[in-house]
Amino acid sequence: MGKAGLSVSPLAPAAFPDLPAIDGVEFASGAAGVKYQGRTDVTLIRIAPGSTLAGAFTKSSTRAACILDNQAKLAAGGDAPQGAAIIVNSGNANAFTGARGQESVDAVTGAVAQATGVPAERVFSSSTGVIGEPLPHDRIIAIVGDLAASLEAGGIADAARAIMTTDTFPKGASAVVAGEGGDIRIAGIAKGSGMIAPDMATMLVYVFTDAAIAAPLLQQALSSGLDTTFNAITVDSDTSTSDALILAATGRSPAAPITALDSGAGAAFVTALHGVMRELAQLVVRDGEGATKFVEVRVTGAASDADAHKVAMAIANSPLVKTAIAGEDANWGRIVAAVGKSGAQADRDRLRIRFGDMVLAENGWRSPDYDEAKASAYMKRPDLVIAVDLGLGQGARTVWTCDLTHGYIDINADYRS
Amino acid sequence: MGKAGLSVSPLAPAAFPDLPAIDGVEFASGAAGVKYQGRTDVTLIRIAPGSTLAGAFTKSSTRAACILDNQAKLAAGGDAPQGAAIIVNSGNANAFTGARGQESVDAVTGAVAQATGVPAERVFSSSTGVIGEPLPHDRIIAIVGDLAASLEAGGIADAARAIMTTDTFPKGASAVVAGEGGDIRIAGIAKGSGMIAPDMATMLVYVFTDAAIAAPLLQQALSSGLDTTFNAITVDSDTSTSDALILAATGRSPAAPITALDSGAGAAFVTALHGVMRELAQLVVRDGEGATKFVEVRVTGAASDADAHKVAMAIANSPLVKTAIAGEDANWGRIVAAVGKSGAQADRDRLRIRFGDMVLAENGWRSPDYDEAKASAYMKRPDLVIAVDLGLGQGARTVWTCDLTHGYIDINADYRS
Repeated sequence: MGKAGLSVSPLAPAAFPDLPAIDGVEFASGAAGVKYQGRTDVTLIRIAPGSTLAGAFTKSSTRAACILDNQAKLAAGGDAPQGAAIIVNSGNANAFTGARGQESVDAVTGAVAQATGVPAERVFSSSTGVIGEPLPHDRIIAIVGDLAASLEAGGIADAARAIMTTDTFPKGASAVVAGEGGDIRIAGIAKGSGMIAPDMATMLVYVFTDAAIAAPLLQQALSSGLDTTFNAITVDSDTSTSDALILAATGRSPAAPITALDSGAGAAFVTALHGVMRELAQLVVRDGEGATKFVEVRVTGAASDADAHKVAMAIANSPLVKTAIAGEDANWGRIVAAVGKSGAQADRDRLRIRFGDMVLAENGWRSPDYDEAKASAYMKRPDLVIAVDLGLGQGARTVWTCDLTHGYIDINADYRS
Repeated sequence: MGKAGLSVSPLAPAAFPDLPAIDGVEFASGAAGVKYQGRTDVTLIRIAPGSTLAGAFTKSSTRAACILDNQAKLAAGGDAPQGAAIIVNSGNANAFTGARGQESVDAVTGAVAQATGVPAERVFSSSTGVIGEPLPHDRIIAIVGDLAASLEAGGIADAARAIMTTDTFPKGASAVVAGEGGDIRIAGIAKGSGMIAPDMATMLVYVFTDAAIAAPLLQQALSSGLDTTFNAITVDSDTSTSDALILAATGRSPAAPITALDSGAGAAFVTALHGVMRELAQLVVRDGEGATKFVEVRVTGAASDADAHKVAMAIANSPLVKTAIAGEDANWGRIVAAVGKSGAQADRDRLRIRFGDMVLAENGWRSPDYDEAKASAYMKRPDLVIAVDLGLGQGARTVWTCDLTHGYIDINADYRS
């Protein structure tokens, strides 16, 4: 259940997936009453000694205190010889809270260090919820001892619930990949529903693996997947002050350590990791505020990948395209307009627009094969594919978005986030 | 009345203004049934011999055939020794209509040339409405003769109505400025309501003056005002394929010709012209699809004017800011987030955010003077001012926008534009 008593997104998966336990990672969740009552709102995650860490954070110039703190800590390196911890609260973003913001971060991470024995410089934190209100960090600190005492490997599903704000369902994804001498497991959770146009990572995402891999290589595996996963989704074009992704590798898998990413087990690991990231990113879109349609926008034939990204995002962020989809109207004219405003190189007469397998427009005009009834029938599906070929080069990019509905207005005209 | 049977915007002025007749400009409007029934949808404007012309058009890479045609004609110069004409239809944008688009433009402008005696290369055209449908230009041509026979100086109010699409009220503005030896009059009309994020000019705008002024100077007077008028408004961040502004000067005023823009009558003319442009631009926002609030976003203290524009537009286009305004929620946290994502240089701890005269946030946090009750009372007004000072430099820019409401979703989930 989301905060505003929202009903579950029609695009939600049937159930939270069975995520494999990651040896060396434990979870505990509790109710601190940061803002919400009658639900869990704090999660503590402990990561075993000898793990390595990587992260990705929002580039927003008004980013929250915890983001600045996490970035400073990770800048000192991704090794965690004495282990690491992550503390997350929902209900309050501790963003734009001046000097008090860092004081709250220090107080909470200090309490976690004391309760878990993890050095404070390896305690990371995230806060999500309302911006500009002081974080009542005493409420969080009051339950840290209990959380530390109840950490368990199986707590990841509860953690996925505790970090929700306007989310209507918890989000998880996993993969198992064959390493040399044994399997490597990857499991991740995410939260996010509105203010989704990540500019580096998205919302709150935590991914864990038992792979043995040095921190710089782990960071590289993470960074190389951002543009095609979390940077390729948008709900409403608004970038959060608090987007954060933390990836931890415990090295507990029996598989041999990964020492390169471009072949063998390393390449397989990267592919599996990016698959988990993509699935989590898509789940965020499936829980987009008010969403009734999940839309894949595939752009090909662009002069460059960067141009393809511009065009795909111009389409995915266009209020007119998104409202047409909400109205189940195959209004490809609005896609033409979005291509035109994107700033990417485009030639009106080379554009080719498909909805699913149907060609709607080509050669600068409506396709002779265009069939309004077939197009309208296609638009009634919950999952749609819009494909645009620019006919200019090899640049390509796929992004994911949702429609813009009355539900979005309902949620955001009333909810103080 | 708008096309979709929409009720008039609550932000509309009480009445269409009394516009001064511009000596040398005549109007005629008629019903061709391009798409709409029972209303006028074509306007013909004739401009006297010896006039000068200037224009501004969308930079969209998928711009409509008439835009390309107008640009080519104006590129040859702005003089009109034998006069000029403008023909405008609503109901069909003749955009993304392939080679047939130019054929329609040639057919319509050719018919106007024949009926008015104006050379075809001085006949400009605009089409607005649905994208991707062939323009039924025969219907327009069928009434061109009647229109040419009924041209009259007083027809500007009817013209403002005939060019409407989802507009809920006709838009006009005027100014009278003292020249040397007599008054100079300026009168303009505009249409626009959705797909408003002009990238050069906006929608359809026609401005007329009896000033005597050479074409290059007229173009300079027009171009120098775009960034602070039509390029400073946004309804929904979507840029049209068809934005066009045409400015004609008949030279019929008794005032002496304007020979410089930087002093005396020339400077007064530029100020008055930009005032008319600003008023027309603001009227477009006041008729923004579904709008219930008119919002001025003032950004100061930026590192540059360009940065101020980025920040102002990030705020004005943020769906979360716009839905908060619709909900009458003084949610300044969303403004902080919009500043952060804008890409402009910003320092969280120097930001100062005001709503009207109230300081809401400063020094990186909520202001000690913040009064939730007062802020909420302010948000109930129909006209709002959001002021953001970045505390970094001298860059400033003001833009205008509206809120994002259920009305916008209603109009655009149903209307094929």
